[in-house]
Amino acid sequence: MTVSISLPLAHQTSAAAALYLQVQLAINTHDGQLIFTTLSNAEPTLMPALLRQLTLQERVLTWTFLSKVSPELAANLLDHYSNTEMVQLASALPDNCVNTLFPYLRSSDRRILLNDLPNKQQTKLQQAMPSTWKAAEEASLTYQAYTAAGICKNEVVKLSQHATVSQLSQFLHDDEQHYEYQEWRYVFLHDPDGRYLGGLKLKDVFNLPPDSLLQDYLDASLPVIKPDSDLQALRSQLNNTPHPVLPVVDSRGLQLGVVGFKQLNEALYRQSKQQLLEQSGVFGGDEFRTMPTLKRNIRRLAFLLPSVVLSYAAVSIIAQFESTIAQFALLAAILPLVANLSGAAGNQAVAISIRELAVGTISSKDWLYVLAKEIPIGMVNGVLIGAVLALLSYFTYGEEQLALPLLVAMAYMISSTLAVLIGGALPLLLAKLKLDPAMLSSPLLTTLTDAISFLSVLTLASMILL
Amino acid sequence: MTVSISLPLAHQTSAAAALYLQVQLAINTHDGQLIFTTLSNAEPTLMPALLRQLTLQERVLTWTFLSKVSPELAANLLDHYSNTEMVQLASALPDNCVNTLFPYLRSSDRRILLNDLPNKQQTKLQQAMPSTWKAAEEASLTYQAYTAAGICKNEVVKLSQHATVSQLSQFLHDDEQHYEYQEWRYVFLHDPDGRYLGGLKLKDVFNLPPDSLLQDYLDASLPVIKPDSDLQALRSQLNNTPHPVLPVVDSRGLQLGVVGFKQLNEALYRQSKQQLLEQSGVFGGDEFRTMPTLKRNIRRLAFLLPSVVLSYAAVSIIAQFESTIAQFALLAAILPLVANLSGAAGNQAVAISIRELAVGTISSKDWLYVLAKEIPIGMVNGVLIGAVLALLSYFTYGEEQLALPLLVAMAYMISSTLAVLIGGALPLLLAKLKLDPAMLSSPLLTTLTDAISFLSVLTLASMILL
Repeated sequence: MTVSISLPLAHQTSAAAALYLQVQLAINTHDGQLIFTTLSNAEPTLMPALLRQLTLQERVLTWTFLSKVSPELAANLLDHYSNTEMVQLASALPDNCVNTLFPYLRSSDRRILLNDLPNKQQTKLQQAMPSTWKAAEEASLTYQAYTAAGICKNEVVKLSQHATVSQLSQFLHDDEQHYEYQEWRYVFLHDPDGRYLGGLKLKDVFNLPPDSLLQDYLDASLPVIKPDSDLQALRSQLNNTPHPVLPVVDSRGLQLGVVGFKQLNEALYRQSKQQLLEQSGVFGGDEFRTMPTLKRNIRRLAFLLPSVVLSYAAVSIIAQFESTIAQFALLAAILPLVANLSGAAGNQAVAISIRELAVGTISSKDWLYVLAKEIPIGMVNGVLIGAVLALLSYFTYGEEQLALPLLVAMAYMISSTLAVLIGGALPLLLAKLKLDPAMLSSPLLTTLTDAISFLSVLTLASMILL
Repeated sequence: MTVSISLPLAHQTSAAAALYLQVQLAINTHDGQLIFTTLSNAEPTLMPALLRQLTLQERVLTWTFLSKVSPELAANLLDHYSNTEMVQLASALPDNCVNTLFPYLRSSDRRILLNDLPNKQQTKLQQAMPSTWKAAEEASLTYQAYTAAGICKNEVVKLSQHATVSQLSQFLHDDEQHYEYQEWRYVFLHDPDGRYLGGLKLKDVFNLPPDSLLQDYLDASLPVIKPDSDLQALRSQLNNTPHPVLPVVDSRGLQLGVVGFKQLNEALYRQSKQQLLEQSGVFGGDEFRTMPTLKRNIRRLAFLLPSVVLSYAAVSIIAQFESTIAQFALLAAILPLVANLSGAAGNQAVAISIRELAVGTISSKDWLYVLAKEIPIGMVNGVLIGAVLALLSYFTYGEEQLALPLLVAMAYMISSTLAVLIGGALPLLLAKLKLDPAMLSSPLLTTLTDAISFLSVLTLASMILL
């Protein structure tokens, strides 16, 4: 009997705890049928917590046995895991088990495995791919992740140019079992060489005489998406058509699949989730607290160690002014105050530039436009908050040090204006250098605003106070 | 002739500039037909930049005239704007124009207008709502934004319990024009009182004899979603079914619409986009640099002014140790160093807790679990980076100040461990208090880690150095 060493989660109800024990029992008896019954009868809302709670070893056992009984359910349940977790699990599973699961996965998941698994496993998977979508799937893999081809769905209904309504009807009923995720709102016609001829809506041929030729009902208003279209171009095309999905067709006429708002939103969500984590210094995708501690530690240090160098460089400016500070120790409080607030002002501009770049409102060339738009913000900010800071320092220690409020206000005005300008322009510069703005903007900005703030406070202090 | 005072965007091609001039010309001649021709023939990829470039006044004119010629196109083009911009435009449009557009909007957009427009306009819109989906739409409005009912799509095919295949066929062909966004993969049957009876896939009745009764083909595997299900519960249910969309039905049996991964991903993306901005101190949704400067300034100050108070409170600790610093001025450099790096370490833990809360891996009660998982991270972080900091300060100013490296290492170990623990637990506490963790965690954490860092550096300094 395995002893679970994972900490209990306080929000776990007794139903969830009971389910977990049931699953553990089924795993330990190596009984695929029992695992299948337990999981397929479980309350759906309990599944995310349950699956998350399983250790990697328990996951491997569950999927090994379950995929023998019901590869469909095994494939569906993988949706509960993040991409990182799915790859981790797949690389720990026996080869034949992954091969069994593979045809039941959604095309997006298949693509992730084909990209991220160790090379040896990738090759085996290529061979296990169902021949019907092999060409389209292989073609999709050659495109980047955030393009129409990279996010498209391969499971579409493809028929020959001479197909009739009754053949379509046959096809729809035959393949039901194996095409759970198939996009069947559209039917696409292809010539004998596999070249795309056009598509039609299923509902437009609904209830027509069985011997009607599908090619007579091709929808002329259905545009085609180029496989290398980026997410912005794709959104724009989807916004300009009433069709919920559009075919992705390459220059040779091969249809890679279809793409719609569902795939687009999923990709945008993944991108924004990654940016969210990167902006806070979490790299390499989601971190879950169920991951091994060493791995979590290494991932976090990957951001913190470079930060040490940057931060050290910025504060070394202060050390140059040792004698100024010895004469006027209150400066030690003014330095972090000005630096933190300038950093906060600059970070707002960073966030807006990153969003505008993502939405496509600005491009990496628009730094002059951004600077022009940020100057009034930075200056009004600087004057207003500078005045507040001056008042605060006047009432706290100002009585005997009349020059201090002036110093604080001036230093803040200079450094916040520069911070907002740099914050607005930095993501554009990074994008131009093909670096990731979400990852690098914040740490670089903080270093720069710290340095500017320290320099302006201390230079002004040497001039005014001493 | 209007003179455009907006700054040119550097990435604008001459095609985009020409199109903008064409549109301006059409607006100024108040020629709806010309606006329609220009916009419907424009290259789709030029549209986002073009529409963004229009001033509010130009937008009002465009939509006023366009909605008379083609309300469909006018409604579709609104998709290019963010929700904030759409509400802004709608509240500036004449009432009759909004009423004309309203039935052509997607249900999600209608819901946004009904929630966010001024009360008077809302009432008028309620009256303009097409009666077919009025009951469902009104019911959806009573649920919160991030629930199944809040994100569901109202445009579904509803037929009476006695409908036949030929009636369905009729319905599909009749309503085509007005139901562009309709979900027609499923047909839902309702009793004479409007109560939900079940649904079936269109493809399952494809090509059946015209007089077949639809109720004989109801899909028993189609589950029903409760309207108040949150996004996590919804994802879980969608993951456990092969159906791409599921009906949302309330306790009285009224079907509010359908919901699928498309709506779910859209909602998750909106949520994550909002968090991304909030974490950087941008509140109230997207800021675009095309907004009025005053408005942008006020929005940014809404975050910065409270930050002044928090930051001032933290640095006032330093002022208490004036004499310590006067004797040992290098402390002024150590203070921001320790505070910044502890803040960075704590922010990583914040980001992970916010993600885990969003994904549903932890709940707001799991603070003990989070603390247990963060302690080893915080301590290893503290020891390693503390050692790096000690080495750096030894080589920089250590020769004569042997106690300094020790001080830095100890202070960092204490404050980074506490920062990581607080960072992990803070979002849970805020969630428990029904406050927004994405908005408040970072500023509160920074204040706390600053205070802790300052206190530990200065207390240790009074003990060791003096």
